[in-house]
Amino acid sequence: MKLSFNRNDLLKAINIVNKAVSSGTTMPILKCILLDASSDEIILIGNDMELSIETSVPGTVLERGRVALDARLFSEIVRKLPDSDVEINTDDRLITNIKCGKAVYNIPGQDAEDFPYPPIIEEENVLSVSQLSLKEMINQTLFSINANENNKLMTGELFEIRNNTFRIVALDGHRIALRKLELAGEYADLKAVVPGKTLSEVSKILSDELDQPVSMCFSSNQLMFEFDETKVFTRLIEGEYFHIDNMISSDYQTKVVINKKEFYECIDRASLLIREGDNKPIVFTVEDGQIELDINTTSGSMNESLEIEKEGMDIKIGFNPKFLTEPLRVIDDETISLYMINSKAPCFIKNDEGTYLYLILPVNIL
Amino acid sequence: MKLSFNRNDLLKAINIVNKAVSSGTTMPILKCILLDASSDEIILIGNDMELSIETSVPGTVLERGRVALDARLFSEIVRKLPDSDVEINTDDRLITNIKCGKAVYNIPGQDAEDFPYPPIIEEENVLSVSQLSLKEMINQTLFSINANENNKLMTGELFEIRNNTFRIVALDGHRIALRKLELAGEYADLKAVVPGKTLSEVSKILSDELDQPVSMCFSSNQLMFEFDETKVFTRLIEGEYFHIDNMISSDYQTKVVINKKEFYECIDRASLLIREGDNKPIVFTVEDGQIELDINTTSGSMNESLEIEKEGMDIKIGFNPKFLTEPLRVIDDETISLYMINSKAPCFIKNDEGTYLYLILPVNIL
Repeated sequence: MKLSFNRNDLLKAINIVNKAVSSGTTMPILKCILLDASSDEIILIGNDMELSIETSVPGTVLERGRVALDARLFSEIVRKLPDSDVEINTDDRLITNIKCGKAVYNIPGQDAEDFPYPPIIEEENVLSVSQLSLKEMINQTLFSINANENNKLMTGELFEIRNNTFRIVALDGHRIALRKLELAGEYADLKAVVPGKTLSEVSKILSDELDQPVSMCFSSNQLMFEFDETKVFTRLIEGEYFHIDNMISSDYQTKVVINKKEFYECIDRASLLIREGDNKPIVFTVEDGQIELDINTTSGSMNESLEIEKEGMDIKIGFNPKFLTEPLRVIDDETISLYMINSKAPCFIKNDEGTYLYLILPVNIL
Repeated sequence: MKLSFNRNDLLKAINIVNKAVSSGTTMPILKCILLDASSDEIILIGNDMELSIETSVPGTVLERGRVALDARLFSEIVRKLPDSDVEINTDDRLITNIKCGKAVYNIPGQDAEDFPYPPIIEEENVLSVSQLSLKEMINQTLFSINANENNKLMTGELFEIRNNTFRIVALDGHRIALRKLELAGEYADLKAVVPGKTLSEVSKILSDELDQPVSMCFSSNQLMFEFDETKVFTRLIEGEYFHIDNMISSDYQTKVVINKKEFYECIDRASLLIREGDNKPIVFTVEDGQIELDINTTSGSMNESLEIEKEGMDIKIGFNPKFLTEPLRVIDDETISLYMINSKAPCFIKNDEGTYLYLILPVNIL
């Protein structure tokens, strides 16, 4: 095999597929990136058996072939090469020669036969949205999964199409995060639970461009994301996802409209008094025109009041501050609305358009 | 005690004294920052019993007093306060009220009586240099100490005044780093070995200004650095430092002049083939007009050649690459000169002005 690339193109592709290379595995082949130039296209693949990423690199195939190279070593080498043309040349014993300027490396390769290729997914049930939208929808919900939960469904996010609306849901037993996107066009209804780790890696590769699309291709147990020169394959989590619609109510007794940045900073200031294993709540006292925030822990106490617009009843209610700071950090709006029923019922943060909704269970403060 | 400050002034002072606060200690009082407003000046002090830093903060003493506050909590609180005036108010039970805007904290304080003050050092044997010079001299030598060595002297740096020249020396058994500064004025000869940890912290606080002085005040077993509003106190390491002058020779058989950046990047590229516990050298083959660099490890091999100006004999010599990249990273010059005698004798990197010198022992490559 003999290939030629620009160093920057190659590095960009390596950085993408590296996200699917497992460092913890005991199988040496899974620590590799596969270079596949068995046709005139050069493809790089990483695969940790749950998540698999392939991307094509611009370059010239001088001689067809395939080789698997240790991902860490290969990416460090390319990262440190000067910005120039890189030539990669693999001999019959899989010794791979990497040449750039006057620097010449020789590293051992592994047999591409041993490398697991991603599954083949039929291109039906395809959903296409902008890369930016998907990236935001993931980042605005993913913190609400429970990555360490025994219940596998809680370690993933629900991707759902219903009535031509695309919805992503994450929950962990104390809260629900939900993002909605109206779709232009007709789509069949669909439900799939996508592993959180996959979504975390995908959101890092997706671009911030609103006019660049990503298409998602669902099979019964697999999902493929396709965008730019890249395909990401992931297995889906099996099982029936939680029915959340009956947990979401639009009733409220108290509505609070508050400046998001001030509210976030105030809760963040309160949070620093909480030490690990010390689950003290932050207590809100809502009255006309102001909300008072109080926290009292073994480290000390803190009190602050903020201006609000209030509608409905006064209320005193307590929360785990983390469950508030996480959504506040990712909501784009300048002001947000909180909806509460009583000190024991879930609180909702949502906008009028219904594009986002966060349900947060309060903490007992009596 | 009742004090008022600007939040940014207070935070700046906390960040300085925090460098002397021990997080690993079992003595709670050493995890504190002392606020001392027993006169009309407000002083903050951190002390880990080896290193002690005090700095004065602009502010108003509304009521004199002293209190010791948990450093981590106090600095996190001040870091998260809005940029406004901060009022600190300690009551008889040492409960300390920190108020800024509408945010009010109450945290427990500790008795200032328990806090260890830094020693008093008589202002004799004072050396004054620019902050930038001292910072550079430390950063250009400190990597050569051996912080984990049983021989305490190797964990510090020699500060020496001789013939009105200030010299800093660091060594670890395989190499020596030396920086010199000619002093304007008459100084008594002096030798002191300063702990590496102190120097690492001091270099972080020193400014990058050439016209801001730092004065160093030496006693028999203590050193005080004084600059801006800050005093840093450190104990000295006892013992007779290594006699390095007879190890430094100006003889050579081969002189190599080379572009520093190219040389550094090339060795850095070779280094990535070295895995932990794999002490393979980088081998230089010096000939007329070029140096060839080779490395061969269990990960693979690498070869590169660079243009040089050579004077004297051809030579083949091996080094631990780290001992070259560390000085190359901190030398300011565009080209550097290497001086070698044979493949078993020390190599020197030095400039004609004699302001820096690095001695590096080669590795046996036969």
